[in-house]
Amino acid sequence: MNHLLPALPPVWGEWLRLALEAAATLAFAMSGLIEAARKQLDPVGVCVIAFVTAFGGGTLRDLLLDRRPFFWVQHIEFLWALLALCIVAMLFMRQRHFQPTERAMLWPDAVGLGLFTAVGVDLALGLQLPPLVAVIMGVITSVFGGVLRDILCNDIPRAFNDHRPYAFWAFAGGWAYVGLGLAGAPAWLALALTVSLTAGLRLVSVWRNWQLPSWRA
Amino acid sequence: MNHLLPALPPVWGEWLRLALEAAATLAFAMSGLIEAARKQLDPVGVCVIAFVTAFGGGTLRDLLLDRRPFFWVQHIEFLWALLALCIVAMLFMRQRHFQPTERAMLWPDAVGLGLFTAVGVDLALGLQLPPLVAVIMGVITSVFGGVLRDILCNDIPRAFNDHRPYAFWAFAGGWAYVGLGLAGAPAWLALALTVSLTAGLRLVSVWRNWQLPSWRA
Amino acid sequence: MNHLLPALPPVWGEWLRLALEAAATLAFAMSGLIEAARKQLDPVGVCVIAFVTAFGGGTLRDLLLDRRPFFWVQHIEFLWALLALCIVAMLFMRQRHFQPTERAMLWPDAVGLGLFTAVGVDLALGLQLPPLVAVIMGVITSVFGGVLRDILCNDIPRAFNDHRPYAFWAFAGGWAYVGLGLAGAPAWLALALTVSLTAGLRLVSVWRNWQLPSWRA
Repeated sequence: MNHLLPALPPVWGEWLRLALEAAATLAFAMSGLIEAARKQLDPVGVCVIAFVTAFGGGTLRDLLLDRRPFFWVQHIEFLWALLALCIVAMLFMRQRHFQPTERAMLWPDAVGLGLFTAVGVDLALGLQLPPLVAVIMGVITSVFGGVLRDILCNDIPRAFNDHRPYAFWAFAGGWAYVGLGLAGAPAWLALALTVSLTAGLRLVSVWRNWQLPSWRA
Repeated sequence: MNHLLPALPPVWGEWLRLALEAAATLAFAMSGLIEAARKQLDPVGVCVIAFVTAFGGGTLRDLLLDRRPFFWVQHIEFLWALLALCIVAMLFMRQRHFQPTERAMLWPDAVGLGLFTAVGVDLALGLQLPPLVAVIMGVITSVFGGVLRDILCNDIPRAFNDHRPYAFWAFAGGWAYVGLGLAGAPAWLALALTVSLTAGLRLVSVWRNWQLPSWRA
Repeated sequence: MNHLLPALPPVWGEWLRLALEAAATLAFAMSGLIEAARKQLDPVGVCVIAFVTAFGGGTLRDLLLDRRPFFWVQHIEFLWALLALCIVAMLFMRQRHFQPTERAMLWPDAVGLGLFTAVGVDLALGLQLPPLVAVIMGVITSVFGGVLRDILCNDIPRAFNDHRPYAFWAFAGGWAYVGLGLAGAPAWLALALTVSLTAGLRLVSVWRNWQLPSWRA
């Protein structure tokens, strides 16, 4: 993750990025919390699924790329924050309904989709992997936390069967990041454009209720 | 995968092997496509499951053996070919029925079972792992793509509960490969015999409808 | 695993520990066997699930910590023993009922929970990982074999939804091990206390039927 930083406009860029990452990680964790609570898991299960949803995609990417330490070992404050979130959520979430939370999460989740895709692509390109592999690593980073959440909750992954484009925009955004890099754009600009494009397309496709075509007529 | 090549009869052996690998990978991908389409996944899900079915077993083996680059990074043309296959399948498969495709896949799938087992065993032996571990790596290579497919599709893996011997023949074929190696057979001969034996037993057991014994009487 | 040995009282300590490990691995394997037989899997599936339940947690830990060779490659006699167990179980278990076996497994399973947690924490601390990460590795070592078993059997992992504290005691025991290490306790004492504490709490919580609080009121 530090790979991009030297090229970012120093102070505010770094802070903005860290804030976006924290918001997106939070949104991913909340989606895990909500799904696990819906399935009536016990508190241990809810916490584990929140962790897996938030960190699973990046961990799988790091495993595949053979990177150590994992990003959540480097940034261990994220782990502690998530543990605190789980405890707080356990105390406060009982009497609330989920719908408002889900709508509130749409924005940071879309930003996370773009941001984590760009980070994954960037890390893979930094290891000299070919563009197609780098884009796949970007999609894995942003999408597979949710896939692992759904596997643990014993569902078919939502990203694969709800017919709303999600991983598709990550795939498109990953190619945009690759293209911007080849075109010589500075890293901070490529990152900003990729996040805007991916998150924007995701949000528009939710608002307009765009559907992927059905596989069979 | 290049490990075996120097010992193969140079030109035609290499081409034959590449053709078999391509056919088997195609058969694995098609089994993913069909299963995902049956489950009414959206096009993104169908493509992801085709990829995971085709490459999941070898990727898990490479992860366990700590091998990098992954074979699909070394042979990136396989990734591109699979992407093209998914797009073509999406355009053409809608109006077709699945049964003929499944019957057509029986042969290349059986060949893949033997071929990927032999490749996995060979790679593990090359890393000085003990024979039992090498055979397990062979079984993982040829069987776990399908296992991951079924996990993602939210089924109990077919290899574990359809009572038709599949992983069992991979296990037997893996030991055959080990034995042939110990007996001093050249690599190309060990490969050819293992593939013939494993694929042959698989095909016979399908035609004769052999069943594994039930666990409980 | 050899990491702790020099500090143990030499001969009997080592033997005791090996005996406990063997008993716990056996208990984990049996829980996989029973669950898979209940789901009517075929013999191949039952054996694979026994292997995954027994070795999955430690393998995932080794993958995450980038340790090779895996512990089951170093101690390949465990693999052979498990293979023998599967064959014996297939011949003898048909006519028996499961309840007595399950009660008999409660003790070694609880010991395994404590022992594998301590081993996982110890390995991670030895790699200079922070305490929270080490405790997570301990929990993964002792709990994720069962999680993988339930994923393969197409269930929500029991550790996440049966409301009986299991992973929770592993988490607590992991912190106890960390604390004892910081307090300067010799490794064999830290191990013995962690195992006693974790296994004891697990057994008490089963006998007293303690329940985790429900997530929603």
